[in-house]
Formats: sequence, C-alpha cells, structure tokens
Amino acid sequence: MSIRRGRSVTISDVAEAAGVSRAAVSKVIRNAYGVSPGMRERVEDAIEQLGYRPSVAARALRGSSYRLGLETPHVNARFMTQIVEGAKRAVTGTPYQIILAPADGPEYGTLESLADGLVDGIIAVSPLVDQTWLEDLAKRVPVVMLGRHDTPQGYDTVIGDDHAGARAVMRHLLGLGHRRIAHLTEPEPVTAPGCGTPHAIRLEVYRACMIEAGLGAHIQIARRTAGADSAQSAAAELLTRPDPPTAIFAGHDDMAVDALAAAAGRGVAIAGYDNTDLAAHPLIGLTSVDQQGVEMGAQAATMLLERLQGRTEPRRYMSTTELRIRTSTTSVSPG
Amino acid sequence: MSIRRGRSVTISDVAEAAGVSRAAVSKVIRNAYGVSPGMRERVEDAIEQLGYRPSVAARALRGSSYRLGLETPHVNARFMTQIVEGAKRAVTGTPYQIILAPADGPEYGTLESLADGLVDGIIAVSPLVDQTWLEDLAKRVPVVMLGRHDTPQGYDTVIGDDHAGARAVMRHLLGLGHRRIAHLTEPEPVTAPGCGTPHAIRLEVYRACMIEAGLGAHIQIARRTAGADSAQSAAAELLTRPDPPTAIFAGHDDMAVDALAAAAGRGVAIAGYDNTDLAAHPLIGLTSVDQQGVEMGAQAATMLLERLQGRTEPRRYMSTTELRIRTSTTSVSPG
Repeated sequence: MSIRRGRSVTISDVAEAAGVSRAAVSKVIRNAYGVSPGMRERVEDAIEQLGYRPSVAARALRGSSYRLGLETPHVNARFMTQIVEGAKRAVTGTPYQIILAPADGPEYGTLESLADGLVDGIIAVSPLVDQTWLEDLAKRVPVVMLGRHDTPQGYDTVIGDDHAGARAVMRHLLGLGHRRIAHLTEPEPVTAPGCGTPHAIRLEVYRACMIEAGLGAHIQIARRTAGADSAQSAAAELLTRPDPPTAIFAGHDDMAVDALAAAAGRGVAIAGYDNTDLAAHPLIGLTSVDQQGVEMGAQAATMLLERLQGRTEPRRYMSTTELRIRTSTTSVSPG
Repeated sequence: MSIRRGRSVTISDVAEAAGVSRAAVSKVIRNAYGVSPGMRERVEDAIEQLGYRPSVAARALRGSSYRLGLETPHVNARFMTQIVEGAKRAVTGTPYQIILAPADGPEYGTLESLADGLVDGIIAVSPLVDQTWLEDLAKRVPVVMLGRHDTPQGYDTVIGDDHAGARAVMRHLLGLGHRRIAHLTEPEPVTAPGCGTPHAIRLEVYRACMIEAGLGAHIQIARRTAGADSAQSAAAELLTRPDPPTAIFAGHDDMAVDALAAAAGRGVAIAGYDNTDLAAHPLIGLTSVDQQGVEMGAQAATMLLERLQGRTEPRRYMSTTELRIRTSTTSVSPG
C-alpha cells in the first residue's frame, strides 16, 4: 500500500509526521552522524507509515543508490546464474539490490557507466580489462572482480582454484586411458599466456598435463569462434581431424554441452567446468568441475558490502573445486 | 582513450574547448531548445575530443539516463535469454543500454526503484502486478509489459499467441494417440482463471482440449512448488499417481527439461513451450512451441524507444507460434 502512495510523499511530510526538521530527516536517510536513536526511530517510523521513498537519483548524487552492479560479458552463460544467485542471497536482508549490466563489446564503457553514480559498488567479470584502469576505477567505487588471478591494490578478487580443477579433469581422463585428449577453449585473447584468466590457466594446465604424461604430440586445441554463441562447430571440426580425440576437456559447461551435441553417438568422452545445473540432468550427465559458483557470487557481494562499510585493504577469495564424475566420461571407452 | 580520461574532464573544460558558455554546454547535453546547429556541433566535438561524460546521476535527475530497465522475476529462466538477446539487438546503434533488474519477491518495489530516475523506460515481466498500479507507473515512465493479455491505456504489451501455441501442443499429443495427458504448470496465483497470464491461458486451453476430446476424466494438473527452482519433484509425483499420464504438456521448457529428468527411461512423451536453446540439443530433443522470444524482446525495446520519442497511444504486439516437433514426443508410444 505504502508503495502506491510513495510518489506524492515529500521529505516535509515525513518531517511533520515525525515532529522533526527536514534536515533531521535528511540526516537519518543518509546515515549521517549526530542522529539520536530516538530521532532515528521516529523518522524511520514516519518513513514507513507514509511510504516515503527518497529519489534514487538524489541518493545517487549524494553517493548512495543502494544498488550493487554486476557486470558480465555473458548474461546467457549458465555459470552466471550461480553467481547471480549467490550475490542475491548475500544481499538478502540488506537495503541493497543487485542489478545486472550485460556488457556488449568493450567493457570499459559498461563499467564506467555503472561507476558513474548508478551503483554503490561493482562486481564484474571482465577478464581482459587493464589492471591499471581497474585500480583507477576502484578509487572511485568499490570493486570486486570475478575470475582474475591478479594481485590488485585497490579491489578484491574472487576466483576458483583453476589449477586444481583443470588438473582433476586431466587426471580423470588420463586415468580412464585416454591419450588423444583435446581442449576446447575460448578465443585467443581470453587465453593469452600469462593473462591470468581462468581459461588461460585451464589451457596451461591442459598442456602441462599432456606433456607430463608424455602426450605432447597429441595436444590439440580448438576454440569457440569469437562472437558465436555456440562451440558446436569448433567441436565438430575437432572430431573430423585426421587423428580425432577420444576425449575433450571443454573450458566450461556451455562449451561441453555444445561438444556433446557435436559428438552425439560418436563415443567421445567429454568433461566440462562449472558444474552448471544442466550437468546433473540424466540426459546430459556431464562430468564437470564444481567450483561453487553460488558461494563465489555470495562472497563477491559480501566483500563489496564490507568495502561499503569501510574496508580498504584488498582481499582475495579462492573457492575450492571438486570433480563431479558422470556418464559423459564414464560411459565411453578410450577407443 | 577518451573513456579513461573522462572523470577528470568537467563541463567547464568542454565550454572552454568549444568556446561557449557552460550554460550552452548544458543546453546541448540536455537537448534543450535554443541551440543552433553550429553550437551543437562545436560542443559535441569538444565532448568527444575531451571524453567528457556528464554524470549519470545528474542526467537521471534531469530525466535522461539512456538506460532501459528489464525487470524479470526469473533471471535464470532460459526463455529470458531470448528476450534479453532481442532487446539488446534492438538498442544496438542507439545511445541506450539495457540493464536487468531481477525482482525478488514483490515486484512493485523493483519496478518503483527502476522508475525512480534509474532508467528512461521499463520492460517488465510482471504478470501479477495490478493493472491500475501499472497505469499509474506508466504515467511517470514509459512501460512495455511482456506476457500480459490485458488491454492497457498507458503502456504497451508484447505477448505470444498462447491460445494457438497451447492448442498446437495438445493437437500434436492427441494426434499421437495419447489420452492420459497431464499439464505441468506454475503455482496457483500465476494461473488463476481470467488473470491473463500466458500460463493461465495455456492451462485453460489444456482443459478445453481435453474436454473437447472427451477426456475430461483424464485431466491431471501438477504444479511447480512456489520458490522451488525445479519442477522435477512435481513431475515425479505425477508419474507415481495411480493412473499416470503417458504424456506431459509442460508450461515452459525449463519445467519440461525437469520433467524429462523425472521421466528418464519411463517412456513418457513430454512437450514444452518457448523453444529455448536447449530444446534442439540432440540429447534433449524437446518438442516445444517457438514463440519467437528474440523477436518479442526486440519488439518490446523498439516500442519503448518509440514511446521515448513521443508515442503515447498503446500498442500491442503478438508473436506467432510454431510447434517444433522432436524426439521427446515422437520416440514414445502412448503405451
């Protein structure tokens, strides 16, 4: 009810109802110092009874929108639903709300516009944004980055243990007797050596494990086409090579599910990463690495709230991984 | 480059570079009257060269944020990825950006806060929000509602042809010889008779088709539990009833995919709705109604842009539907 009346209620109405000055109401709203508990209670009661909502734009100019922005280049990616779920859980019971900003093309612009008074803090999946630039951004607005293995000064990071996760996949496939194991990954820029993205690390671990196993000659890499939603054609191309792989380690579940489509009926073992909701489906049964995405999202939002409460030293959270073994690898022999 | 320098550039810098007053720059930025084409060009050139970005919050107070908000109760729903994709396509090449606001619980609050200066217009999936309330909201900010079969005065609607789509599913299942056909749908409030939601109409058509076919005695309805992500247990319960269905018409693909998990290996025909990306996967092969979600999202954003350009009379766009027949119904006999 109160919501419907909200737009006609002014700060003066609240002041009158609470029996205080407009300045006092303003102080309570912006959490300023010098407000007695009694005054806060009277004002908050009046705000609730009248259904008063201070203008979001006015709050934004003042420095508080009660919004946390989650920027992601892939709003469709199944793993992101875990992150969003976790972030939403973490802000439950706080005045904060999560909004999502899907980045198209260059992420600098999307991050800039979020920082530009729209949100109080940013959680971002922007693996390729320059660190120096991010440090500058973080001077203006609290920032938590997901999936960056860097060592920042001014922002926090939430990452999975990509070394352990990728190694678990490779150990599993090698243990099943596969020798021709291919890796299906993201386009070049995302996996550039040393760039610190999860996909760069998974690729590096794949190579290292193949070499350690004496299978350097069997290293085969296929990449999703930049801009294409699906990795199905990349996987299909892999399977028509002269010496096709008997197993594919896909860099994430969406690509693994595409690879399952490409490989349907061919008896190729396929493993993914992220343990998305679909992996456990009996018709999919995808072996995948659980890196606890919901917990990662929750940690990211929690760290952002800590920064909003004044923490400034950088924190880093690394989730542990666990391989979930399913029929996509166990029902297939290495040929 | 310009973006990185953006935050240090002020309106005074722009005025100086363009050789005009600060007031003139402000006029150009807010598209006010009384700006000569020459002045506009000089100011816009200076803005571009200096990388000036007026504060979003300031623009919001003035009434233009260049953002369109997409509110949805189910950010995880696979159908929403089609809507988001279409909306993003429609704003490509415009100054507008799409942001997503996932509603948790009551949608009034989420819509209010979007309207409260955050965005210039709202696309919303809020089937149960009161029409009178929406008409009020639409007086403050342009609104396009997705999936509401109502006849509004002040906002636009984008809907699918739920009557035709649901009838096509039922005709298909009846044509295959199924008599014990169940319907898996959303919780009660979403399908209340006459409430005009897509799910109310799909349920109504299901009932009507069963009765027309003389199968009124075989009507069986199961509902996803409110708050539960999955419809798997609802489908499983349906299959353990004394006279279990040989076919399930699920109200949308997410529920159909859950039903496939519940029915794995039992030879039950399952059809969904929305033709989400997963339906065509060879391991899923889900018969589903394509209601052109991408086009629906694009139309919604386009209609919103039209309203921002001054259109006030309400418009309604109804997409056509087409049944995509796959193995989830064709590989199963009616038992």
